Amino acid sequence: MVRELTILKLGGSSITKKDKLFTPNVNAINRLAGEIKKARVKPLLIIHGGGSFGHPVAKKYKIKEGYIAQTQLQGFSKTHYAMVKLNRLILDSLIRRGIPAVTIQPSACIVTKNGRIKYMEKRPLINLLEIGVIPLLYGDAVIDLTKGFTILSGDQLASSLAVNLNARRIIFGVDVDGLFAVDPKLDSTAKFFKQLSLNQLEKLKRSLGESDVTDVTGGMRGKILELAPAIQRGVPAIIVNAAKPGRIYKALKGKKVIGTIITAR
Amino acid sequence: MVRELTILKLGGSSITKKDKLFTPNVNAINRLAGEIKKARVKPLLIIHGGGSFGHPVAKKYKIKEGYIAQTQLQGFSKTHYAMVKLNRLILDSLIRRGIPAVTIQPSACIVTKNGRIKYMEKRPLINLLEIGVIPLLYGDAVIDLTKGFTILSGDQLASSLAVNLNARRIIFGVDVDGLFAVDPKLDSTAKFFKQLSLNQLEKLKRSLGESDVTDVTGGMRGKILELAPAIQRGVPAIIVNAAKPGRIYKALKGKKVIGTIITAR
Repeated sequence: MVRELTILKLGGSSITKKDKLFTPNVNAINRLAGEIKKARVKPLLIIHGGGSFGHPVAKKYKIKEGYIAQTQLQGFSKTHYAMVKLNRLILDSLIRRGIPAVTIQPSACIVTKNGRIKYMEKRPLINLLEIGVIPLLYGDAVIDLTKGFTILSGDQLASSLAVNLNARRIIFGVDVDGLFAVDPKLDSTAKFFKQLSLNQLEKLKRSLGESDVTDVTGGMRGKILELAPAIQRGVPAIIVNAAKPGRIYKALKGKKVIGTIITAR
Repeated sequence: MVRELTILKLGGSSITKKDKLFTPNVNAINRLAGEIKKARVKPLLIIHGGGSFGHPVAKKYKIKEGYIAQTQLQGFSKTHYAMVKLNRLILDSLIRRGIPAVTIQPSACIVTKNGRIKYMEKRPLINLLEIGVIPLLYGDAVIDLTKGFTILSGDQLASSLAVNLNARRIIFGVDVDGLFAVDPKLDSTAKFFKQLSLNQLEKLKRSLGESDVTDVTGGMRGKILELAPAIQRGVPAIIVNAAKPGRIYKALKGKKVIGTIITAR
């Protein structure tokens, strides 16, 4: 049994250059590895997204849609390989700082059904945490029992592991400061939420109407929806800006930090 | 259910430069990827060893001996990372040739007990084979229920998967032509075995005495011992020289090739 687990999710946009194919944000990766090193939080599990590595390849070959044509097999292979490349850069940066991190390849131990995690072999992961190793996972192209294969997002992975491992908290590193009443990229005076319950979030969505839903979360509706099962089970999530130096460090240390805490009620 | 599976094990000495730390044999890797491409054998599963990547790091930190001191955690991380680096070179070479290969990280889906495979989540692997993807595995640093962690050899993995997936055959790529009565590196006139049963091998060992056991197999006793469970269950193994161009191709195609076939009786 792993106690008091912290799950750190690093969004693809905070570790890659979003608009440049296969371009890591090396400075951000190294800075974040430094913040993780400095915080010395254990047990810790890290999950990262795909950014400009996984997404463009997955999109090109329609991997999320499932297995339709044999030509997609190379795309499946290439999508996974793109994630392996990005993962290696992060692993390398952690190891160089003396952090005992070990990648756990999601597609090697997870099978989904219609896009949702159906089975996961968690023993290696749990045992690694128990001996003091930091597992590093990522969004991946995985086998799907309904569709042949699909994309498993790092967000779903974070939420599922938070529930299954009874995590203490999820720290969600993104490229905005947290949740706003309207998209801060469209309106710089948008109201910022320091704390929000799932109920409040629900009400807010309704009052603004479905069409504004995306704006409510600053383009993060899908992420919040994925996190909801974990939050409902009592695992608080804090959304912080991983692009701003020191925010992830402060969140890891449990210090006061600009961000949005989302709780069940 | 996967039918007629071929398992190809590539020894570390055939894909790395044995005596040079972290030095891949890039020419050999590319040539072998070409032979695999040309043979077009499916379903196919590939396993590779560690050579000058995994072994030196594992040895330095005594990973095989299990978890004794916290300083080993970085060694565990580094051993796995060394294998990831080597694996990526092979994966890259396969993908560049249009082979839909996907790595399956052994330490993500296998737990050993006192050095022997205790659990393995095989669903992703089996499903990949079923849709036509070629899984690529390797010897790895894994979680061990008795020792904390240990090294799982590619040989044990090959044998275990051959039994569990009811493989048609194991092709064992090494850096000698096959099995000799005495080590061919010591005696160039050594008798060569084209075919050998496990019983004959046993007798041979006894007639020569235990001290000569290593020589009997040209330094490959451990490998044969690992393969024995699969061979006993009726999965023939052919030992061929992966360093000699065309041998792996011929073995994959089922063509006549210099090598030693080992059968149950």
